[in-house]
Amino acid sequence: MISKNQIKYIQSLHSKKHRETETLFLAEGVKTCLEIIEQMPEMIDELFCLQSFLNDHERLLHEKKIKTTVTSNEDLKRISLLQTPNEVLCVCRQFSQSVPEINFENQFSFYLDGIRDPGNLGTIIRICNWFGIKELFCSEDTVELYNPKCIQSCMGAFLRVKLYYMPLNELISLKKIKDVFAADLNGTSIYESSKTAGLIVIGNEANGIQDSTKQLCNGFITIPSADKGMESLNAAVATAIIASEWFRKSV
Amino acid sequence: MISKNQIKYIQSLHSKKHRETETLFLAEGVKTCLEIIEQMPEMIDELFCLQSFLNDHERLLHEKKIKTTVTSNEDLKRISLLQTPNEVLCVCRQFSQSVPEINFENQFSFYLDGIRDPGNLGTIIRICNWFGIKELFCSEDTVELYNPKCIQSCMGAFLRVKLYYMPLNELISLKKIKDVFAADLNGTSIYESSKTAGLIVIGNEANGIQDSTKQLCNGFITIPSADKGMESLNAAVATAIIASEWFRKSV
Repeated sequence: MISKNQIKYIQSLHSKKHRETETLFLAEGVKTCLEIIEQMPEMIDELFCLQSFLNDHERLLHEKKIKTTVTSNEDLKRISLLQTPNEVLCVCRQFSQSVPEINFENQFSFYLDGIRDPGNLGTIIRICNWFGIKELFCSEDTVELYNPKCIQSCMGAFLRVKLYYMPLNELISLKKIKDVFAADLNGTSIYESSKTAGLIVIGNEANGIQDSTKQLCNGFITIPSADKGMESLNAAVATAIIASEWFRKSV
Repeated sequence: MISKNQIKYIQSLHSKKHRETETLFLAEGVKTCLEIIEQMPEMIDELFCLQSFLNDHERLLHEKKIKTTVTSNEDLKRISLLQTPNEVLCVCRQFSQSVPEINFENQFSFYLDGIRDPGNLGTIIRICNWFGIKELFCSEDTVELYNPKCIQSCMGAFLRVKLYYMPLNELISLKKIKDVFAADLNGTSIYESSKTAGLIVIGNEANGIQDSTKQLCNGFITIPSADKGMESLNAAVATAIIASEWFRKSV
């Protein structure tokens, strides 16, 4: 059984402010929760589920020593952020870590400059996961990883791709990055460029890359289109196309 | 001024059933509406806008002979589907046309097999627009183009990319298509394949390509990933990566 106070406490985690104060976040849905249980059980503070979920996964939950509370359908609906809540919700601990060693001279990653849509961020994390990019960098005004819609659209990929929020100039000097490319409407065609290493900056959905960020870039790359004067592409779509092209050339 | 009956009538177009009966649809937002006015004014049945929009675009509206009705903020909110309605809403006529001549031996296009998310469909239309694909094909259970969320996320690209809904076998025999590729987790790497013409089938977000559809395909292509056993990619992301790769090879 889940107490009234617990319900209130979990509901408070629906807001970013409380997630930050408590350094916790919520993950929902059978698929995402099973991935966390299997790959990073230590991340789970407490798991709330219907009896049916417990029946199906009792052995795994026991083996991974997950603190589990069975709830009614009604209570799950109260603590869930989904319109149609799934069978299970995990209260998880946020993780933070220092930036690992990355050699930007023989690998590439992205820097997201003010991405606002949590669904876009989730999609970008899945793209990084697909192409083997293990660290993703974000400006401090990029949407929070722990936003429930982001965690939802990640499909567990956030367990394999680590996010680091920091100003671009700090990252560049910290990691001594030589090649910083802005993905822009004007630049060298990604099909023609021979580059496959460095940091690629992806701009905000509506406004592109901020001027102060552009000044830190020493190269501009572009996705050619069939017809000049086209609209820009969605930020996640642009990331996918560039990641695929650089991946293709580097393997 | 807009009458109560008009408000009711426009609200009825919020539902797919009425859009189909009336063969009309709604487009909202300054950017999308201006594109329609400029590129396909004959599509507009009537335009409803705030006085501010009329002031800004009176000459254009007159020139293009757009039937225009000024509404209050309140009434615009009543007829709009947006939480924060924009300055303008167009009631537009649905267009239908027969499938044009396409030579699938020297160009490529996509067939969407049961895409359900209107945002995904809109994103795919933008991708086609970017890479010069002018005709896009959809199974009959793919989400409706005129779904307001799709029109919204298209950013006007639906004016330049035409959609045709029909069963795959009908399309294949109608256009005598020789090469039909399924985008699948197992297949020839898109980086290695030398193909740049034919029809590429993209599956549903959750379930992939239906078996009955797969049987109509004579080739399988796949987007290589860094790590086997990865999740599948989002349908729009997969479309973007394949479109970019085929476009690169064909120009």
